[in-house]
Amino acid sequence: MNGRSTVVASALADADATAFVHVGDRHDAALRYLVGFDGPACEFAYVHVDHPVVCVPPAYEARARQSLDGDEVRTLDGPPGLAARAVLDDALDAPGTVLVPRHLPHDAAVHLESGGYDLASTRAVADARAVKTDAELDRHRAAQSGAERAMAAVASTLSAADPADGELHADDRPLTPARLRRVANVALAEAGVSDAGNTVVRSDAAPIDGVVRSDAADGEPLGVSDLLTVAVAPREPGGYHGVLARTFVVESDGGWERRAAVAVDASRRVGVDTAAPGEDASYVRAEATAELGSFGLSPVALTPELPAVARGVGLDLDEAPDFASETPLEPGHVFVLAPAVRGEKGLVGTADLAVVTEDGAELVGSVPTSLSP
Amino acid sequence: MNGRSTVVASALADADATAFVHVGDRHDAALRYLVGFDGPACEFAYVHVDHPVVCVPPAYEARARQSLDGDEVRTLDGPPGLAARAVLDDALDAPGTVLVPRHLPHDAAVHLESGGYDLASTRAVADARAVKTDAELDRHRAAQSGAERAMAAVASTLSAADPADGELHADDRPLTPARLRRVANVALAEAGVSDAGNTVVRSDAAPIDGVVRSDAADGEPLGVSDLLTVAVAPREPGGYHGVLARTFVVESDGGWERRAAVAVDASRRVGVDTAAPGEDASYVRAEATAELGSFGLSPVALTPELPAVARGVGLDLDEAPDFASETPLEPGHVFVLAPAVRGEKGLVGTADLAVVTEDGAELVGSVPTSLSP
Repeated sequence: MNGRSTVVASALADADATAFVHVGDRHDAALRYLVGFDGPACEFAYVHVDHPVVCVPPAYEARARQSLDGDEVRTLDGPPGLAARAVLDDALDAPGTVLVPRHLPHDAAVHLESGGYDLASTRAVADARAVKTDAELDRHRAAQSGAERAMAAVASTLSAADPADGELHADDRPLTPARLRRVANVALAEAGVSDAGNTVVRSDAAPIDGVVRSDAADGEPLGVSDLLTVAVAPREPGGYHGVLARTFVVESDGGWERRAAVAVDASRRVGVDTAAPGEDASYVRAEATAELGSFGLSPVALTPELPAVARGVGLDLDEAPDFASETPLEPGHVFVLAPAVRGEKGLVGTADLAVVTEDGAELVGSVPTSLSP
Repeated sequence: MNGRSTVVASALADADATAFVHVGDRHDAALRYLVGFDGPACEFAYVHVDHPVVCVPPAYEARARQSLDGDEVRTLDGPPGLAARAVLDDALDAPGTVLVPRHLPHDAAVHLESGGYDLASTRAVADARAVKTDAELDRHRAAQSGAERAMAAVASTLSAADPADGELHADDRPLTPARLRRVANVALAEAGVSDAGNTVVRSDAAPIDGVVRSDAADGEPLGVSDLLTVAVAPREPGGYHGVLARTFVVESDGGWERRAAVAVDASRRVGVDTAAPGEDASYVRAEATAELGSFGLSPVALTPELPAVARGVGLDLDEAPDFASETPLEPGHVFVLAPAVRGEKGLVGTADLAVVTEDGAELVGSVPTSLSP
């Protein structure tokens, strides 16, 4: 038992429900949270009547037994929804209400309903995930430390680059966003974290970041005065995210981007200073947004993976607490603070991991925000 | 339009259904296949009545428009299931039958059903994904080429290692599975592919591979006669997998592992030679299994991510064609061929990517299967 099943037990008591069921694969953060390991590529089932029962394919039984330490592990042989219903049928005299996360796969829901069980959505696991334990915070810090190494590697490659004819070169070849993306990902691998497919290096010369991220081609060389966005969101082996983004310009002519960077810095400071236990998450976002507004600027998302201003993060890049609604912050809440703005020259912004502490909030790690690499 | 919506249009015609709906996030391979880009970390919706309509958060609209080239892109503002229902309500005079993949999230199903729509499961997208186009095969080859580089990097580190007192050392430090895992992941990053969290390096001294994979600690040094499993399953930027696994022993005393390796090689050859268009996938698996049996050995999964003997692969590590049931193979089917056996000294096995061609099947790439690194 990794302790997390108490979350489920409380939800069952609160809702006066009979059982909890979830089905998903290794990408399902709720399941990863509950079972404590990255499960199979195929779907598996988690069932709780009075204790957790995990139904996994044979190859995962050893891992499940080790991680779950005494919880019941059954061999999955067929659709996980049917396996879950069999566990319920074994444990219960009569069907009742079963709590399920809202994203339970439809076929599993149909299997349960055809067994006479009523389904009711629960946010219990998603809500519990919002508050990180010390062990989870350590994992976030490990991921963020990898992110910092990647950013340092990119910055050092950029600052060592040779500006010739207005374009950047390294090792006598043009320096492209795709090359820098590889530099970032190698540094992440060296740090023992996975890039998780989230690394974005784009210059605003490119129309959209999808091009740089999804295309193996090296693309156009970077110009010395291009605004360059570098964003990483690696996962450490336990699955928790780091998030770090910076804008770089090798030769800035001052002007708009300097002012934008000052505004972004100010917004970031306001975000950290405003966040505290009991404070409303949407207020924090509103204050950081207002600070950009005082410079005549509006917030945008620096990359599609990053939020405009703030969003909860953990095993997913998008999880509770919800900064778009009135949510009281609590110690252990982890969020991405990502003020960014768009001007005629492109995007300027930063993204950092922040954690709510007992008496305020703090950024995880400390990476300069200077536009100069 | 990327051409894949014809899969959906045919399924609608075949089932005499009104529409197709799916909801999921970037981890959903069916959506990735349909939209052709890696979507948001949050859920989004794909709806097809007479043409595809994609509902994504604002930050993804540019990427969606580029990838979908003329298809309809709507701004997602609220639950994707509700957005999908609104698209249906706009396009239809009356509710009808809506085809959905079996893993449509439960809440989206409830939103559709409460709008009067009947849901029916379809395997159309999963089945269509089984046959890869030339462009998809190129992506598999790119991922596999990265996998080969990783395997070469690990083998060269192992063969250069210094055996002292029965343990392996490199750069005057003990060589551990965790260090080798990092070597593999750095090589993957250098090759421009993502490790996807799938890299496993384990010696059979470790109780289960979860330990090596999920623990940042460096662990026990490798012994010179340890059986070492090295498995990678990277994704190229388009999301398609490479899969490669080998067993290494630095100083083999011959005996069991040599014989096991001969059996594994023979099974692999039988698998490739048996697979062909029209042949039954489960027969291919049975023949490769029987070959192991002729050595008195039974198949096991080399790592939990790998199949016992054979399984379809693509955007997911586990997809059609299904090698556990009677499925006629077709040109363009891609599968993992992974014969492996367990003995008292541990596991011996290989895993390779294979593709069904017009007149047979072939392995993608060619990596030696020698136990000696």
